[in-house]
Amino acid sequence: MNFEEKTINRTEIFKGHIFDVVVDDVALPNGGTGKRELIFHKGAVCVLAVTPEGKMILVKQYRKAIERAIYEIPAGKLELGEEDTLEDAALRELEEETGYTSDKLTLLADFYSAIGFCNERIRLYLADNLVKVENPRPMDEDEVIELSYVTLEEALDLVASGDICDAKTIMAVQYLQLMRK
Amino acid sequence: MNFEEKTINRTEIFKGHIFDVVVDDVALPNGGTGKRELIFHKGAVCVLAVTPEGKMILVKQYRKAIERAIYEIPAGKLELGEEDTLEDAALRELEEETGYTSDKLTLLADFYSAIGFCNERIRLYLADNLVKVENPRPMDEDEVIELSYVTLEEALDLVASGDICDAKTIMAVQYLQLMRK
Repeated sequence: MNFEEKTINRTEIFKGHIFDVVVDDVALPNGGTGKRELIFHKGAVCVLAVTPEGKMILVKQYRKAIERAIYEIPAGKLELGEEDTLEDAALRELEEETGYTSDKLTLLADFYSAIGFCNERIRLYLADNLVKVENPRPMDEDEVIELSYVTLEEALDLVASGDICDAKTIMAVQYLQLMRK
Repeated sequence: MNFEEKTINRTEIFKGHIFDVVVDDVALPNGGTGKRELIFHKGAVCVLAVTPEGKMILVKQYRKAIERAIYEIPAGKLELGEEDTLEDAALRELEEETGYTSDKLTLLADFYSAIGFCNERIRLYLADNLVKVENPRPMDEDEVIELSYVTLEEALDLVASGDICDAKTIMAVQYLQLMRK
């Protein structure tokens, strides 16, 4: 079966620092036409960081899109023209946000966050063997965060209460749960 | 600790059918200022539908944002001004896309897909006790889809191969895996 939606025309709406917006007119495989509103994003990495005591590191931060502070795993956007690898990016975000580094990263998942309209691709890594960095890289100036260290049970409680409420962090909690079973 | 980012100014960039875009100038809790590029979305529902044979229903469809056809669980946007409940919306999408209905919906997860810049909130339901509908509601005209019925093992293979690659579907596979353990 042919699924392809061919672009007839693309209108550029917005070029931002975080994402670009376009609207495409498309030819549908069933003969009709349609409009597709699309977000282009450079992608991101996130890290399920587990301390030697078996606790998960969470970052509390304000999310303007929902006007609330919530708990998430450490994460960050890929920089445009970034020369380093995805693993380097994951370690950089881990160090900047938590002060830890790791010599053991394992790719747990590689996914699109909001496939219906956005191409943001996120890689989720497990970081084991965490070691404190003496003089960690500083965070971005516009980041205000607070760290927590939680057990799997506490993380599941935070999901139930809605204090953990984003897809990547829920997915990370599920991976931890599957690893512990 | 105060995390709030107060809006100083909001610039409306785009009003679409699927999402709106704004850029906010914000006052940061640490005294500085910043810009926040934001997507406002009406939210969505998705359904982990399990047949009496224990198979998961997947929908193959083209996703313009990544120019590929991929396998996902049935899902759909909430309609603006929708009078019905979230469960009604989930059952409507299930029926339109698969021809099945269910008398048993269980909320498995309630999450934001891309919390860093977007307020899209998705509810994931488990649908048990599936029954074929005789004359199911028709799909939207611009939808071209193909159905598959897969075991948990086949779903995990599709995740490994990248044919399942979106957050909500991976999350649904994880829930199925946790239920079967």
